[in-house]
Amino acid sequence: MNVGLVMIGDEVLIGQIINRNAAWIADVVTASGGRVIEHCTVADDAQQLIATIDRLRAECDVLLLTGGLGPTHDDITKPVLADYFNDTMEVSHQWMEHLHDWMKQRGRTVTDRNAGQALKPTTARLLPNPIGTAPGLLFDRDGIVIVAMPGVPKEMQGIMSDHVMPLLRDRIQREAIETTEYLTLLTTGIAESNLADAIGDPTQFLGVSTLAFLPNYHGVRMRIGARGASAEQRREELFRVRDILMGKAGKYVFGEGDTTLASVIGSILKERGQTLATAESCTGGLLGSMLTDVYGSSSWFVGGYVPYANEAKVRDLGVLEHTLEMYGAVSEQTAKELSEGTKHRTGATYAISITGVAGPGGGMPEKPVGTVWISVAGPLRTVTLKYQFGSDRRINRERSAGAALGMLWRMIR
Amino acid sequence: MNVGLVMIGDEVLIGQIINRNAAWIADVVTASGGRVIEHCTVADDAQQLIATIDRLRAECDVLLLTGGLGPTHDDITKPVLADYFNDTMEVSHQWMEHLHDWMKQRGRTVTDRNAGQALKPTTARLLPNPIGTAPGLLFDRDGIVIVAMPGVPKEMQGIMSDHVMPLLRDRIQREAIETTEYLTLLTTGIAESNLADAIGDPTQFLGVSTLAFLPNYHGVRMRIGARGASAEQRREELFRVRDILMGKAGKYVFGEGDTTLASVIGSILKERGQTLATAESCTGGLLGSMLTDVYGSSSWFVGGYVPYANEAKVRDLGVLEHTLEMYGAVSEQTAKELSEGTKHRTGATYAISITGVAGPGGGMPEKPVGTVWISVAGPLRTVTLKYQFGSDRRINRERSAGAALGMLWRMIR
Repeated sequence: MNVGLVMIGDEVLIGQIINRNAAWIADVVTASGGRVIEHCTVADDAQQLIATIDRLRAECDVLLLTGGLGPTHDDITKPVLADYFNDTMEVSHQWMEHLHDWMKQRGRTVTDRNAGQALKPTTARLLPNPIGTAPGLLFDRDGIVIVAMPGVPKEMQGIMSDHVMPLLRDRIQREAIETTEYLTLLTTGIAESNLADAIGDPTQFLGVSTLAFLPNYHGVRMRIGARGASAEQRREELFRVRDILMGKAGKYVFGEGDTTLASVIGSILKERGQTLATAESCTGGLLGSMLTDVYGSSSWFVGGYVPYANEAKVRDLGVLEHTLEMYGAVSEQTAKELSEGTKHRTGATYAISITGVAGPGGGMPEKPVGTVWISVAGPLRTVTLKYQFGSDRRINRERSAGAALGMLWRMIR
Repeated sequence: MNVGLVMIGDEVLIGQIINRNAAWIADVVTASGGRVIEHCTVADDAQQLIATIDRLRAECDVLLLTGGLGPTHDDITKPVLADYFNDTMEVSHQWMEHLHDWMKQRGRTVTDRNAGQALKPTTARLLPNPIGTAPGLLFDRDGIVIVAMPGVPKEMQGIMSDHVMPLLRDRIQREAIETTEYLTLLTTGIAESNLADAIGDPTQFLGVSTLAFLPNYHGVRMRIGARGASAEQRREELFRVRDILMGKAGKYVFGEGDTTLASVIGSILKERGQTLATAESCTGGLLGSMLTDVYGSSSWFVGGYVPYANEAKVRDLGVLEHTLEMYGAVSEQTAKELSEGTKHRTGATYAISITGVAGPGGGMPEKPVGTVWISVAGPLRTVTLKYQFGSDRRINRERSAGAALGMLWRMIR
């Protein structure tokens, strides 16, 4: 089943917002065995939208559209699709009732602006929106399925999960077509080209499978793609390639799929009844935010400090004033006192500290921008390492948090 | 000047990574007066890439390609473009020399895998990559400009800034075509439909301009688009519409363009010589991370606490055990003691606290998932408010951080 994605909206087109919907949709469609063949972002423009639908329907069985269904004047998707299918508009009494309930719960009444959300093209099926006021629309006619959904991520996701994916999964199973399944191995602590060299020439063992290296600021992912007519064949092929990759670079692999290093660390700590605390200077809370993004983190994350000012390092975490004077805040000594002081103060099993020059300014000859000291204090030892990142503040912060998690993982795995 | 963007790579297509490059490129191109007409994401597949280039060149003056230039086997962009233009490959001695220097600095040597990066199609201009080993390629022939860049964001951004944008700006100025310029007003503390109602029917005052409402978790943005033949005409039109919008909803507007609420707050505090501290429970450091994302934040942000465990709330920030027992950690009383305790401990002029049930579990009848208390302690008073968000952990955390910044901004503006 070939699926095309169309994002509608000037705000995406001109770069005002990052298109996160495409990745979310492509991921769930791919995981269900659908084949995403193109993403296309177009303007709030009827002609361009129609031309795109016409072009993509030649190759797609399903088109998933997001955006342009809101209550304001710049939302064109519904009238364009009604025109496209020569439909007229009718009121959905069921959705009108829902709108009244929705507004009532919030102490508001249905305005004319909102009432327009209950209008639908006659041949479209209305897909209830579990969160917002704009429902989705599904056309299944003339040899193609076209689904229009709001651009607000949670609303689109609710409609996809509740209504669209069950339909697609059903069709994919009925067709039982040959498809590709993916498995991703997640690594930390090795650069892309070194990983590629460790793996060697992949054509030697890939066969009908594919392998891609996907670097980001936290590590390099290896994505295996296996083709096969049955789910079993694909699984078997995935495991075959995975075993080979694990044999060559398994010591860098911390997990599979869409887990995170924070989540893997949390599972290990939870199982052992151990805990973690943090002290972040240049990352300012980013590491704590990543850790607490994991649901249930309160069972192993006891808390963190962002001792941005030097006084806070001394007052809360026992860093010696002498150390700050002698070596500076960005130094091995301060990093070590920070991690050990945090461990001591919180009673956590492990404590991580990060202190560095995030940039873009603030560098010195002996401590250029991108210099970051990270320290992990554990029950048996403290490990403190220096990293030299680049000149971009945001990337340096992301990399620092990623490197800190990598250091902790290597200590506890 | 019409510009088309093409992202090449299975990892984007199947949703394994979010396509952030498109927004970045579209933003800088739009800001320079170029008109982005489509973004298109395609597979690592020669046929599809060629078909896409063929299709887009009919409507575009410039095509910007990202991805598929790396050192591994799945990178096809360079050979496909060489084929497309009937070019052969030649070695760039200059880039080869650069590769040797680059590797030497890092204590490595140029492997065969890396040496391939110095090959270029004969009619392409090589665009030096300021960070990585894969240079960009620029073809300017047969009535179209095609630029291929690596998919790694910082490398693409460096090549765009250093080489591509100067060229595009130059052409746009020479053509002096009618174009659209955008101005965005950033609001906090008002819902999209309420903002639309406050603005009223925009067709009454828009004229040739456009207006779009763009909500995200931190607030609603209003984007004005003004057309005109000269930069002056467009500026004048932008300011005319802005003044009308400010008259109708100015009290919610905290800034313009791509600034952030954290940055606006930082400027105010810095100018006044005031400081800020934070205590985050359910957001786990997200707010601190947003504040310290602002370069120079150390002059006004003194630090933060992530007192995830109740003991940390008592030990570090003076929350009374009695309060936690009587009212619980998610309560008005605890939020207030946290903000005031943080202000007291750090000596900051202002302190923000956030405590809530982020979800997806952990809700109770009287404190369902999404209940968040936020408190801001200032020199004159402490304001403590309850928010009721939804069921999604990540969104609740984002909204909490955004709401906290909004509360502080209203207190200090």
